[in-house]
Order: sequence, then C-alpha cells, then structure tokens
Amino acid sequence: MNKLEQSDAPDLSRLAIHTITTMPWSLEEACEHYASEGVSGISVWTEAIEGRKTSDVKRMIDAAGLKVPALVRGGFFCAPSLAEREVKIENNRRLIETAATLGAEMLVLVVGAVPGQPLETQRDWVRDGIEKILPWAEQHAVKLAIEPLHPMYAGDRSCVTTLGQARRICEVIDHPLVGIAVDVYHVWWDDRLEEEIRLIGNRGELFAFHLCDWRCPTRDMLNDRALMGDGCIDIAKIRRWVHQAGFTSWEEVEIFSSEHWSRDQAVFLKQIVNRYIQIDQKLVS
Amino acid sequence: MNKLEQSDAPDLSRLAIHTITTMPWSLEEACEHYASEGVSGISVWTEAIEGRKTSDVKRMIDAAGLKVPALVRGGFFCAPSLAEREVKIENNRRLIETAATLGAEMLVLVVGAVPGQPLETQRDWVRDGIEKILPWAEQHAVKLAIEPLHPMYAGDRSCVTTLGQARRICEVIDHPLVGIAVDVYHVWWDDRLEEEIRLIGNRGELFAFHLCDWRCPTRDMLNDRALMGDGCIDIAKIRRWVHQAGFTSWEEVEIFSSEHWSRDQAVFLKQIVNRYIQIDQKLVS
Repeated sequence: MNKLEQSDAPDLSRLAIHTITTMPWSLEEACEHYASEGVSGISVWTEAIEGRKTSDVKRMIDAAGLKVPALVRGGFFCAPSLAEREVKIENNRRLIETAATLGAEMLVLVVGAVPGQPLETQRDWVRDGIEKILPWAEQHAVKLAIEPLHPMYAGDRSCVTTLGQARRICEVIDHPLVGIAVDVYHVWWDDRLEEEIRLIGNRGELFAFHLCDWRCPTRDMLNDRALMGDGCIDIAKIRRWVHQAGFTSWEEVEIFSSEHWSRDQAVFLKQIVNRYIQIDQKLVS
Repeated sequence: MNKLEQSDAPDLSRLAIHTITTMPWSLEEACEHYASEGVSGISVWTEAIEGRKTSDVKRMIDAAGLKVPALVRGGFFCAPSLAEREVKIENNRRLIETAATLGAEMLVLVVGAVPGQPLETQRDWVRDGIEKILPWAEQHAVKLAIEPLHPMYAGDRSCVTTLGQARRICEVIDHPLVGIAVDVYHVWWDDRLEEEIRLIGNRGELFAFHLCDWRCPTRDMLNDRALMGDGCIDIAKIRRWVHQAGFTSWEEVEIFSSEHWSRDQAVFLKQIVNRYIQIDQKLVS
C-alpha cells in the first residue's frame, strides 16, 4: 500500500459509539455489529448492562476486540438534603468500581439539577460530590469527566450548562483525574466555545469528545438528536478546535433519537460509520 | 385610605399582558378582559391584528383604556442572501410604522437564525439590519428591543442567545432607541445574568422585562411555558436585579402554553393577575 492509499483508507481507530445510540440492540448485538463495522470503542451506558455481571460484560467486550472509553452516566449529585446527596455520592463510588471492572477510561458525570434551587449552590454540591468520590477514582485509576449539558436542561438535569462552569469546577478541584467531556450537542451555541476548548486543553482536562448533530427543527428536547451532517452544527470546526487543543483520544458518537431507534440499526450503524469517515476526511462539516 | 392600606393594595399599573398569552381570545375579548381585571397594558402580537386596520386596533385599545408597551415580534433579520435580508429589513420598516400607529413604545426584535450559518456572521446581519431600520425608528420615535432567545433556539430562531451578545450589538450601534428585552424564560440559566442586567441598565438599554416560568419537565420546546410560580425560575431574584438596574417600566406577562390555551381564558387571566400581585408583594419567587 503506498502512502496515498494509506492516507485515503478510513481510520476508525478513534471511533467509539455509545450503546444508547443503538438502544434497540442488546449489548451482544451492539458488540458484534460495532466490531464487524470496524468501530474501535464502545462507551457503555449503565442501562445497557443492568442485571448483568460486570465481569461477564467485560469478557464480552474484550472478545469483540472493543475498548471502553467511558461508562455513562454517573453524577446526578444534586438533591436538596445532605442525606440524599450522600446516597448519590455512594452510588457514584459503585459506578467507579464498575468502570474499573469494565476497563473504562472514565466515568462520565451528568451532574444533575433540582428545580428551584440556585444553580450556583447546586454547582457547589457537584464540586463537593466529585471531591468525595475522588479517592475511589484514584484507587481504581478511573477518570471523571464532567459533561456540561445544554441550558435547556438547567431546570432538572444539569446545573452545569457551559464549558466555563465545568472548567471552574475543575480548577477548584485541580486533580489530574477530573476533566471534561465536550459534546457538540450541548455546547455548539456558546460564543466562548473556541476559547474554552483551548483553556481546557491547556490544563489537560479535555477528556472526551462526543459527536452527533442538532436537528432543525428539533421536535423533542431529549430524543431528537441528528446524525452528524444532518443538523446545523459545524462539527468540522469544533473538531478542529478540539484537535488544536491537543486532544488525541476517542471520538464518541452519542445519538439519542426516537427516529433512528425506530430504523434498522444495522443500516443506521453503517451510516454512522460513513459519516464519521466523511468528517474525518473533511467531506462533511 | 391610610398608608398601610395603600401599600397593601395591588398595584397593576405596570402589568401588561402579551396577546399570545390568551391566544384563543380575539383582540376584542383580550382588551375587554384585560381592562376589566385591571391590567394596564397590552403588548400586541402581529398575529392578533392580522387583516385589521391598525387605526381601528388603536381605537379599540384606547377605548379599553389600555396602553401598548410593545408590538411583537419584528426582527427575523437572518437569511443567506442579501436580497432576502433586504426583504426582511423592509418588513421591519413597515412594523415600525404599525408600532407607531398603535402607540407602542417599542418593537420587539426576535432576530432569527438560519441553520448551518456561523452564529457570529448572523449576529453581524442582525446589527446591519437594525442599523438599516434605525432611521424609521427615529422618524416614528419607536424603540427597538433586541430579545435574546434561549440557546435551544440557536439553530433556527435566534442567533442571539445571551444578554451579553445583545449588549455587544447595542454597544456597536450605540443609539438611544436600541436596547434589550429581558425575558426570564430565555435568560434565567445564564451565570452572567446579574452582571449583564446591571451593565445593560447602566447603559440605559433595559427596555423590557417579560415574565413567565420554566416548567419542569418542559414537554415542548415552544408552547409549554408555565405561569409565574409554577416553574423553576427565581423570578423574585431576577426582578430585584432588574429593578436595581433602574428599570421602572412595564412588567409584561408572555406565556405560550398549549395547556393554558386549552383552559378557560378568563380563569387563566385571573390567575395571571393574582400571581403577578403575589410576586409584587414578594409572596412568590
């Protein structure tokens, strides 16, 4: 193979897919299909392994030759009472153990929100929660990635709605195992995006990069994400910023979509892989 | 009436309602009911006066004893081609004339967005459009209020998603007729909210204050706004910041809600007025 052919060959070595993306599939089906399409990583949602022995899951994923960028989703630290927050913290400690058993590089933290509580107070709860699970993360060598969610989830899902807010939590905690997951869906609208990605990269806190697209119009606040290239996000531009910030790790496709879930998942997976290749070869923005 | 009784009496002199809030009503019904409940202002949506002579509408509103804080909504400046943008600009000139005929203090600008175009480019289109309608605003003494929309509308409704972005447009144009409409629904999540309200107030650009609430969970991205007090927004806090910034003008209730539109609008209106009184008397946050 000459150099030109090499550079034209699709490189799927950084491509991972979140199990939620192909929700109708069992974990067995997901592993089999992802591997047969050349996908390299599988980010595992807790829902996908419910009721299974984690060591069995790990064996299945290993047998398929897949790596595990992340266990998804921990966090949800917010609750009005200290006692409730302690329960949530304890649950995250168990998730860190699960992540370690799976060989996952990180646990993704969707931080939660309680309607009607001041968001800045809640962000303190999040910082406190992360600090309290850090010894477990250290013991198991599992990274913790704060994922800011879109401001439309500020009421009841995430009090952290910008990369800036996530970065400030990281700066206070200041620990090499605590960083940030950048999902284009949640942050694309932010006029500080380029600068924040640069700052986070400089601090070595850019842990994850999630791909999908924003459908226009969006018909549902939760389950109407688009396939990359079918929405309005300039993915190529954001990806360039992420790479310029020194990110060399996984590119994880995470699409929640009732429309795509209703389709043949094998066809959908082939589309995902093709779009990823087009993005990687700069044919799609 | 002694001083105590006076201070306890509900003050509706600053309360206005947007016609969209009671969409099932005709303009006649809205005028009649708003006035009979003691509401002082009616902000008129263009949809509510479609096909009517503006001078007739003005007479009807005057006869009800109502004032008109705003004509809603102009703007929508964004389009890929210059020719299309010129059409939109021309439409705004007509809306300024309509606002003047109605005796509206301002035209509210929802600035628009085109999927897939860089948001910063689109914000330049917005600035350009406002500059091109300014002579009409001056001639008719109608203020122009940029209303930032929630980032969930960045794809196809508004490239201006924060008060900071609106403020920067105002700073460049730097004209006493160009300011900002603060709607709690769109901006409540923003960690820069207090500071931005202060900055905008300092510049004399705080033109309008819109009230409703963010329902948890929100079931629809457009028409699921809540009555003040039924959602997660700390309205009392934001209202305090707005007042501290020197705002002494209308407090406009603007609720789009399929649920509330399906109810008896007279009952809904009484609830709106009661909630406003409770907010004003600090009984609801």
